[in-house]
Amino acid sequence: MQIAAVLFPRLTALDIVGPYEVLQRLPGASVVFVGHEIGTVRTENGFLGLSVDAVFEDVMAPDVVVVPGGYGSRALMDDERVLDWLRAVHPTTTYTTSVCTGALVLGAAGLLQGLTATTHWSVLNDLEALGATPTSQRVVEHLDERIITAAGVSSGIDMALLLVARLAGVEAAQAIQLAIEYDPAPPFDAGSPATAPPEIVEAVRARVSANLASVLVA
Amino acid sequence: MQIAAVLFPRLTALDIVGPYEVLQRLPGASVVFVGHEIGTVRTENGFLGLSVDAVFEDVMAPDVVVVPGGYGSRALMDDERVLDWLRAVHPTTTYTTSVCTGALVLGAAGLLQGLTATTHWSVLNDLEALGATPTSQRVVEHLDERIITAAGVSSGIDMALLLVARLAGVEAAQAIQLAIEYDPAPPFDAGSPATAPPEIVEAVRARVSANLASVLVA
Repeated sequence: MQIAAVLFPRLTALDIVGPYEVLQRLPGASVVFVGHEIGTVRTENGFLGLSVDAVFEDVMAPDVVVVPGGYGSRALMDDERVLDWLRAVHPTTTYTTSVCTGALVLGAAGLLQGLTATTHWSVLNDLEALGATPTSQRVVEHLDERIITAAGVSSGIDMALLLVARLAGVEAAQAIQLAIEYDPAPPFDAGSPATAPPEIVEAVRARVSANLASVLVA
Repeated sequence: MQIAAVLFPRLTALDIVGPYEVLQRLPGASVVFVGHEIGTVRTENGFLGLSVDAVFEDVMAPDVVVVPGGYGSRALMDDERVLDWLRAVHPTTTYTTSVCTGALVLGAAGLLQGLTATTHWSVLNDLEALGATPTSQRVVEHLDERIITAAGVSSGIDMALLLVARLAGVEAAQAIQLAIEYDPAPPFDAGSPATAPPEIVEAVRARVSANLASVLVA
């Protein structure tokens, strides 16, 4: 089982490392980090470098694809090389998946046409222009179409555990959940716009918008 | 505010990327990934490379230190260069922290002497030989001694949100929690040895022991 984890400049690290940490523990799986060129990409602020070990065209028959988000994902939405690769590999994947604004990249490739989907709460409605029906859920699975989208950043952990259950059964997923001691205890109840204080929701929404706009201009 | 995130060969990626994803969003903070030499280190299985941007000796006054775990952390417990660095920087940090078996490294440096502490559930009792009192909690804070230890892998996210609250207040932590949409919904109730099926607990415990033993021999 080959899992292609997509990397690109200005990604959000946890979007891909969350699923990676789960999927790398799937017995018999190998994870390959793919990108535009072999070398290092850096996160939004440049603090963390992650290694790209294969270019997209080297990985043409992955069983699973994971597309993370981050401010840099906006550039992928117009990147025909990435969109063509997604369209080429999706017909033979077992599941093609996204975390956070990675869903907008799947949408730009036409893979969400007519489907319900999720993404980071602050840009949920952006899915509409890509032919999808925005759905405020942590994970949205389409087993027949083999598409799974997850909400913002940390939701990729939940998505990947569900994915392991689909691929290898519930016990395999439980063993991985225990290995990563995923028994979350958030110290505050502010992880969704439904529960966070309204002024914090507006501040975070404004910051995301400003950053996405600056990415589009840059 | 400078945050030193420790990297080493055969680390567990989520141990450090979870806290990184939270702490990099702290206004005014910069995160520097430190290690033995500038370059790339790889996770347990080699699938993921992460960039070391500074050597330990270049970062002698960090405000926060985060030591992750992973099979490779065993080697750090005898690595005088790392232990000396921890002993040298701890007196002036605001908080010195660990995730997973990173606690055993803090313990080997003598920083947990006489304190309660936590680590990955499967090696919790190993803390005793290092002078600490094993405590089965997700996060153990010692604000006076400026030491915070977190349990296995994914617990670093919870720890980092608490840490942001200590450093910058509850609203800053809530804003980050919302930004990373940390509203966890584990699909199974198997994240702790208290809730996972007993046969899965034993299988995971055996696998961790086998891997740690192979590291000690290698």
